[in-house]
Amino acid sequence: MNAKSCIRELAKGARRAARVLALSDGAERDAALKACAQAIRDRASELQAANDEDLAHSEEFSLTAAMIDRLRLTAQRVESMARALEEIAAQADPVGRTIAAYNRPNGLRIEKRRVPIGVIGIIYESRPNVTADAAGLCLKSANACILRGGKEAIHSNLAIAAVLRDAIRAARLPPECVSVIDRPDHALVTAMCKAEGLIDLIIPRGGEELIRAVTRAATIPVIKHHAGNCHVYVHAEADLDVAEKIVMNAKCQRPGVCNAMETLLIDAAAAAEFLPRIVVRLQEAGVELRCCQTARKILADAGPWPEGPPGVKEAAEEDWYTEYLDLILAIRVVDGLDAAITHINTYGSAHTDAIVTRSIGAAQRFVAAVDSSSVMVNASTRFSDGGEYGLGAEVGISTDKLHARGPMGAEDLTTYKWIVTGSGHVRQ
Amino acid sequence: MNAKSCIRELAKGARRAARVLALSDGAERDAALKACAQAIRDRASELQAANDEDLAHSEEFSLTAAMIDRLRLTAQRVESMARALEEIAAQADPVGRTIAAYNRPNGLRIEKRRVPIGVIGIIYESRPNVTADAAGLCLKSANACILRGGKEAIHSNLAIAAVLRDAIRAARLPPECVSVIDRPDHALVTAMCKAEGLIDLIIPRGGEELIRAVTRAATIPVIKHHAGNCHVYVHAEADLDVAEKIVMNAKCQRPGVCNAMETLLIDAAAAAEFLPRIVVRLQEAGVELRCCQTARKILADAGPWPEGPPGVKEAAEEDWYTEYLDLILAIRVVDGLDAAITHINTYGSAHTDAIVTRSIGAAQRFVAAVDSSSVMVNASTRFSDGGEYGLGAEVGISTDKLHARGPMGAEDLTTYKWIVTGSGHVRQ
Repeated sequence: MNAKSCIRELAKGARRAARVLALSDGAERDAALKACAQAIRDRASELQAANDEDLAHSEEFSLTAAMIDRLRLTAQRVESMARALEEIAAQADPVGRTIAAYNRPNGLRIEKRRVPIGVIGIIYESRPNVTADAAGLCLKSANACILRGGKEAIHSNLAIAAVLRDAIRAARLPPECVSVIDRPDHALVTAMCKAEGLIDLIIPRGGEELIRAVTRAATIPVIKHHAGNCHVYVHAEADLDVAEKIVMNAKCQRPGVCNAMETLLIDAAAAAEFLPRIVVRLQEAGVELRCCQTARKILADAGPWPEGPPGVKEAAEEDWYTEYLDLILAIRVVDGLDAAITHINTYGSAHTDAIVTRSIGAAQRFVAAVDSSSVMVNASTRFSDGGEYGLGAEVGISTDKLHARGPMGAEDLTTYKWIVTGSGHVRQ
Repeated sequence: MNAKSCIRELAKGARRAARVLALSDGAERDAALKACAQAIRDRASELQAANDEDLAHSEEFSLTAAMIDRLRLTAQRVESMARALEEIAAQADPVGRTIAAYNRPNGLRIEKRRVPIGVIGIIYESRPNVTADAAGLCLKSANACILRGGKEAIHSNLAIAAVLRDAIRAARLPPECVSVIDRPDHALVTAMCKAEGLIDLIIPRGGEELIRAVTRAATIPVIKHHAGNCHVYVHAEADLDVAEKIVMNAKCQRPGVCNAMETLLIDAAAAAEFLPRIVVRLQEAGVELRCCQTARKILADAGPWPEGPPGVKEAAEEDWYTEYLDLILAIRVVDGLDAAITHINTYGSAHTDAIVTRSIGAAQRFVAAVDSSSVMVNASTRFSDGGEYGLGAEVGISTDKLHARGPMGAEDLTTYKWIVTGSGHVRQ
C-alpha cells in the first residue's frame, strides 16, 4: 500500500473511533486511562524487551550517548509512564465545559461548549514515553491520535501502543483511538501532513528541523514549537539579590531546554553594580559569556580585579538571535525599559521573557509590551512549563499565537461548538 | 519595488503600529473608532466620487449586475459603514480580559490574559464596506491590519482607508494601524500569505476559489471559511408545524448564503406525513427538488394528487455534497437519528446543521454527535451568524476547528499571554 492510502486507512479508523469518543463520558475515558496505566505496569517486561531491541539497533542510527539515554526505558521510566496516565485520568474533564451561554432578545439560547478536535497527528523523536503521554492526553480530551515516533524507537513505540490498545479495548472503547505508524518510511509523515478532512491537527514535537519540515509539508493546521530565545532583563529598580538568584537559575539549572535564558539584559543604571558581580558567579558556574562593548568596558573599569578583568568574548549581532541550549550567555547593557522591550521584541522568539524589578509600573509596561507567550515578573524563565503552570501533562509549548499559546494541556486539544436552541425560531 | 519588499515595508510599519496599539487603552481605540465614523460621514461625497470611478471601470472587469450592486456605495451604505464603526466602538473591550488566574502551591501567581494577535492580513472581494468593517474590528481588538480588496473596488477602498487613517491620526494613534494595498498585482497577495514573522494571521473573505488559493499559497496561519452545506433533520418526534416553518425559512429566506439549508433529511417515521406536505410548500416557493428513491416512492404513493404526484428529480450521490446557494434542495429519507447523524458527518461541511424534535434525548445525541461548528435545535440554520449570536460585527465564519469556530467577533482576533508573577522564584 502506498503512503497516502496507508494513512487514509489508518485515519478513517481513527475518525470512526473519534466519533465514538465524542459520545463517551469523561468517566469512561478516565477508566480507560487507568486501565492503560495498569496494563503498562503488568506488561513492563514486554515493553523492556521491545526497548532492548531498539537499543540493540541503536548503532545503525549512529545515536549519541544522550540520544541512547533518551531512548532507554528503565523500570523507573515505565513506572513514570503509568503514573503520568493516572495523573491525566485525575485531571478535570476538558470536554463538555460551557465557555459561554446566554439568551438572545428573541429567546434563542446560545451556548459555546468545549468539544474534542477529532483526530490529532503527533510527530516526535526519540523518547518512547511520548507515545503514552500523547495517547493519554488525546484520550482524556476525547480525540483519536495517530502517532509517529522516531525510527530508532519503533519497537518500543509499537509495544507501548499494543498495550494501550488492548487496555482501551478491554475498557470498551475502540482501540483505533490510538494508532502508531509501524513503518519508518518518511513518505508516511508527508502523507499525514496532507491528510485534509481526515486528520484535524498535526503537533510536531522535537527539534527545529523536524518542526520546519512538518510545517513546510503540511496543508492541515500545525501547532509549532519553534526556538526558545529567552531573556532576563534586570531593571534599574531590581532587587539585585533576587536578580542574581533568577539569572543563575534561568541559565544554569538546565541549560539545554527551551525555557533557559539565552540573553541577559542589564539596565545601564544597574550595570556598574550588578554586572561584575553576576559575571563572577556565571564564570564560576562555567558559563561562557559574550558581552556587548558597553558591558566589556564596565567590566574592565570595575577593577581592581585580583587577577585582571574576567575574560569575556565580544558579542556579535547574531548572538542576540541565538538559542545556545548550552552554558553560553549573551549579555547586553540597555538604556532603560523601552530599550529592553525593543531588544526582546526584535531578537527574541516570543517564548518566555522575564523582568526583575521592584517597580510596579515597569512590570506592567514590560508585561504589556513584550510580545511573548509567557512573561515573567520576578521569576525564573524556567517556570514556563505545563507542569509548573498546573496543567498536568503537557502536549507541548506553542510558539504560535493562534489556538493555543505557551504550555498546552488537555484543554488545548479541544475546540468548541455553538449550540443554538429555539422553539421553532425562524429568521426574519 | 518588488512584491515581497513592498509587503515587507507595509508590514514593518503595521508592526510598529501594532506595538503602539498593544499599549493603548480601550477608551483610546473607541475614541478613534468614533472619529472614523464621523470622518466617513463628513467625507461621504469624497467616498462616493471614488466609488463612481470604480463603477465607471466596471466594464473592464466584466462584472455581473449583482457584482456591480455589491460594489456600489450609496449614501445609505456610507451611513451604514459609519454606524457599524460606532457599534464596534460600543462593544466591550476584548483585550486585557483575564481568562484564568490562580496561585500555585509555591506562591507563583499565574494569569492568562487576552492580548491582540498583532498584524492581521485580510483578503476580500467586491464590497467596499468590508474595508471599514475589517479595519474597525482590528482597531477594536488592538491589531494593525493590512487590507487587500478586489481590484474592481480599489478606488473606493483606498478612499475609505485614507479617511480612516486621517481620523486615526487625529485621534493620536498611528495611521499605519490600517493599510490598504494600492496595486492590483496578484504577487502582492502571495507575498502577504508568506510574510512570516511580519503578518500573524490571514483571513480570506470571499468565494471558495479565493480561499483555496490563499490556503495553498500561505505559510502563515489562515482562518478559512469554506462551504456551508447545511442540513435540517426532521426527527420522528418533530412538531411538524415547527418543522415546516424551519425548513421553509432555512431554504427560502435567503438561499444564496452559506447558512441556508442545502439538504433536508426526513426521518422514515415522519416521511409519509411530512414529505408530501413540505414538497407542496417548497414547490409553491419555486424550489427545485432532488429526492432519494424512497422519498420519490413515498410521494408517488401519497396520492391521490389532484394533478398527479409532484415532479421531483432523482438525487445523485453528488447532490449530497453540493452547496447549491440557490432555490434547489436535496431531500433524503433516513432510517432514524443515527442515520441522519452519519449522513451529516459524511456529506456535510461542518458548518451548521439543525434537528427538529420534541425529544430531549434525540436533541442531546444530535448535538453531541454532529461534528459541526453550529448545531441548531428547533431553530433555523439561518441564525448561524455573528450578529444573531450577539457578537456585534462579524469578521467571518470559521469552518476551521482551531483558534475560532463558527461566527467570529472581535474577541476572536485576540490571543492570550501567560503572566507569571513571583517574588524571586527559581525552579528547583
